[in-house]
Amino acid sequence: MCGISPLVARSHRQFVDWSVDYFSMDSRLKQHLPQPCNERKNMDNPFMARAIQLSLDNVLSGQGGPFGAVIVNDGKIIAEGVNRVTIDNDPTAHAEIVVIRKACARLNSFTLKDCEIYTSCEPCPMCLGAIYWAHLSRIHFGNLAADASKVGFDDSFIYQQIARPFSQRKIPMLQMMREEALAAFRSWQKKPNKISY
Amino acid sequence: MCGISPLVARSHRQFVDWSVDYFSMDSRLKQHLPQPCNERKNMDNPFMARAIQLSLDNVLSGQGGPFGAVIVNDGKIIAEGVNRVTIDNDPTAHAEIVVIRKACARLNSFTLKDCEIYTSCEPCPMCLGAIYWAHLSRIHFGNLAADASKVGFDDSFIYQQIARPFSQRKIPMLQMMREEALAAFRSWQKKPNKISY
Repeated sequence: MCGISPLVARSHRQFVDWSVDYFSMDSRLKQHLPQPCNERKNMDNPFMARAIQLSLDNVLSGQGGPFGAVIVNDGKIIAEGVNRVTIDNDPTAHAEIVVIRKACARLNSFTLKDCEIYTSCEPCPMCLGAIYWAHLSRIHFGNLAADASKVGFDDSFIYQQIARPFSQRKIPMLQMMREEALAAFRSWQKKPNKISY
Repeated sequence: MCGISPLVARSHRQFVDWSVDYFSMDSRLKQHLPQPCNERKNMDNPFMARAIQLSLDNVLSGQGGPFGAVIVNDGKIIAEGVNRVTIDNDPTAHAEIVVIRKACARLNSFTLKDCEIYTSCEPCPMCLGAIYWAHLSRIHFGNLAADASKVGFDDSFIYQQIARPFSQRKIPMLQMMREEALAAFRSWQKKPNKISY
């Protein structure tokens, strides 16, 4: 058991305020407050509860960042994933990417049209893109991208970058040889019996 | 050899117009025009030339979509990737994701800070996110996301979706249990000797 901070409030809006206060608080002040309670008080959705448990376990086991996700099909979890970026030397190994790859392998399909994802954090642009490509039917998430940024993950920064024109992005983007590159698209258009996705 | 369409113009702006005209053209009209030329006339950057060659080969071999990419470190190609979505049943297996994973494995690192990517098409949001997570130093690309959309790939649609608030996206996004989910972030903050990325 742990102490309940007087700043903790149960409504969503109040909790947002508490969270912002806690994360932006001077560390010296934090020492004089009860620690935020890690006890899970309201794990009322079993799929999100499992995603959150995976995110916690991943921190404790030291395998990667604090992120977990599950994919649900027909009322059952068919795949689970955790962040494995550092342990696998793979910057794409976010929980959502990992779980999408596992679920597709399990269903022997490159789409997940009748499945829903439960992820412990709002997907970053990479993972949101993957969810669209996988055609998942619904996204359930816990933490916000802004929460992830507060603990050192670039989610919000990347969302901001994507919204900018090429010339204003941090990583320079240079177009070249478009005329030559279009040849593959023309070849694709003309190809008979191709598998579209 | 193939015929050169009178609509082909060599300046960038004119080529954009030609491309739009060709792809939006009625198929009956196309029959009366010379086919667009697949011959590569100006492959003046060897890294982009290789990415484009990979994209063409991938169509011809039937392994996946018309996309290829290479990663360059210290003036040499260290990894190559092609789209393998359908053959691997993996919606995340875009050329850029594939090549990033290979390059990281080769360098035994979860970042690619001193590397550049050459990709035959502007990265989709998933791949652009992956490039930011990998901290690549520069992005060179051939086709535009809009070109990809014209031949049936959702790149531009996903960019549009990301720019919208949750409530206006095609795939519903539902937040729940944020208070419980934050526990993993607090645990991460307190963890000693963690590997940040």
